[in-house]
Amino acid sequence: MKTHPVTIKDIARELGISPSTVSRALKDHPDISPQTKLQVRELVDKLKYKPNAVALSLRSRKTNIIGVIVPQMVHHFFSSVISGIEEEAISAGYNVMIFQSNESYERELLNVQALLASRVDGVLASISKTTRKFAHFKELMENEIPVVLFDRASDELDTDKVIVDDFAGAFDAVEYLIKTGCRRIAHFAAPQHLKIGYLRQRGYISALEKNGIMVDDELIVKCDTHDEALETTAKVMALANPPDAVFAVNDLTAAGVLKVLKRLHLRVPEDISVVGFTDGLVSTVTDPPMTTVSQHGFEMGQIAAKILLQRIESGIENFKPVTEVLKTDLIVRESTKSLGSSPPSPTPPQDGRG
Amino acid sequence: MKTHPVTIKDIARELGISPSTVSRALKDHPDISPQTKLQVRELVDKLKYKPNAVALSLRSRKTNIIGVIVPQMVHHFFSSVISGIEEEAISAGYNVMIFQSNESYERELLNVQALLASRVDGVLASISKTTRKFAHFKELMENEIPVVLFDRASDELDTDKVIVDDFAGAFDAVEYLIKTGCRRIAHFAAPQHLKIGYLRQRGYISALEKNGIMVDDELIVKCDTHDEALETTAKVMALANPPDAVFAVNDLTAAGVLKVLKRLHLRVPEDISVVGFTDGLVSTVTDPPMTTVSQHGFEMGQIAAKILLQRIESGIENFKPVTEVLKTDLIVRESTKSLGSSPPSPTPPQDGRG
Repeated sequence: MKTHPVTIKDIARELGISPSTVSRALKDHPDISPQTKLQVRELVDKLKYKPNAVALSLRSRKTNIIGVIVPQMVHHFFSSVISGIEEEAISAGYNVMIFQSNESYERELLNVQALLASRVDGVLASISKTTRKFAHFKELMENEIPVVLFDRASDELDTDKVIVDDFAGAFDAVEYLIKTGCRRIAHFAAPQHLKIGYLRQRGYISALEKNGIMVDDELIVKCDTHDEALETTAKVMALANPPDAVFAVNDLTAAGVLKVLKRLHLRVPEDISVVGFTDGLVSTVTDPPMTTVSQHGFEMGQIAAKILLQRIESGIENFKPVTEVLKTDLIVRESTKSLGSSPPSPTPPQDGRG
Repeated sequence: MKTHPVTIKDIARELGISPSTVSRALKDHPDISPQTKLQVRELVDKLKYKPNAVALSLRSRKTNIIGVIVPQMVHHFFSSVISGIEEEAISAGYNVMIFQSNESYERELLNVQALLASRVDGVLASISKTTRKFAHFKELMENEIPVVLFDRASDELDTDKVIVDDFAGAFDAVEYLIKTGCRRIAHFAAPQHLKIGYLRQRGYISALEKNGIMVDDELIVKCDTHDEALETTAKVMALANPPDAVFAVNDLTAAGVLKVLKRLHLRVPEDISVVGFTDGLVSTVTDPPMTTVSQHGFEMGQIAAKILLQRIESGIENFKPVTEVLKTDLIVRESTKSLGSSPPSPTPPQDGRG
């Protein structure tokens, strides 16, 4: 048990070719030259590589399991994505194994190790907030395990991605606030090294700029969890010139804002408007029900799983990564004023909206 | 690849002894008689059993992964339990692999198969609503994989369990409603073949009986999801003699009840009181914030993981299953009347409660 078994990767390294070339050579694939096949065969014999042994079976047999890494299950969005993934995967005969990184880079590393050890056929992942290095995901790909990133992706990983148009989602939400008369709009933002944090904040800033409203740094605060919102909201409302609206980077943060505003006896939306981002279960049970940007989590999970299953079935030869960008929708509920109610609005009152 | 490898179970079956006896015989354990050891050795040689091969390594090496099966992640309770499990497991050097049964017996079977294939060191599981056969969990135990059940357990499985005192939790909630003046208390119940469904309904009935209130079958309705509550609540409120309180078997169902009551322009708690069961995130953001029974999910996960890790470390010899019963707490928020406000209450008005 203690000896390190020879792997396809060892053979590939020794010959200076890719693991997938080794794998295809062993399967007598027509794309591989007879000379390469001979080299691989000779080295396999020399190193006593046993394709049937455990550690070598990574790609030689399928487990029919796909692995999923999510940052936090407590987010309704991620449980919706998982449901969408399972819908596709289970009907295609795959089981779904889930890991939680809990927003920790270290846990994400452990998750990837466990996925490698479990010999999953493919991986769907949404990157943790604290992850800034991506070698662990590259290791999966080097082991010929296809990886599809969803929601939180990184430009550093050259693989399939399914994301939402975070910029447009944020832009639309903030422009809606402006149209209903809000002028001092605060943004409770996610960390800017996260692409979703950056794009939603850019969308917020662009909507202000397009509408001739000065961006006030005092109104952009780092706050992206329910618990942080319970602390931050009162501070922001205590500013000399407090906001008349809050655009929060997710629903749970917006729900925290609503709780504190109620405690401060501020009326929503009469005194202050609140918009979330997710359209999870929480947004429908808050008081008042929350206006939010729908991310269509279930559909995202379905699409990501479909792409992954295709990669698993067709192999990663001639791999050209795709990025699917899903459209968001603004779901107007009762935490924002209606379009018709805004005196400074340049558009006349409209019926049937808001 | 196609040949079925010999397993410890095959050897055990052939000799009419347990797999754990075979395993201990192979490890030269002092508890096993020399004669049995000889029999095992001879059969192992005859069948060419290879302890180092994949399929046989189930117990011979540790993966440091524990598997978790939950019915639905969308329940905040289960994501809390998972956080508690991870807190214990990760600090002890284990990773946590999670599967969702989605309340489906068939998926639960697939989950168990995947856990077997992944050679996890132990399993924590909460049983799906539709599961009435338990051979799949027994298979894990026969493979010497310790199993600890949490929240939803079954008397048919002779293993460690961590549950809450569902009877007392329900009894306390309903007695509180009675003390605040409610007399027509409806119960939105889970299926009765589920132990938690049965015990919470028994607690409800016992509280009524103890307080001299007739049990009205019309007021006990099968309804235990958010979506079902959106359909069922209006029907129950349309009864000739509608309820003055609803005790729901979980928070998501109670949140659905609150939504429909608002739509019907009924005031909570003036016209009707509502109590949930879980104390998840949802209960704090509803309008009004919900009175509910706290199940202490995080602690449950920690305790269940501690028991499992002990079993993994100490082996399952001399196995005597334990059942830990956790106390619940009634968390009084604003969806119920305060104790002082009840005219028929036998106790004088109290300050500082409700």
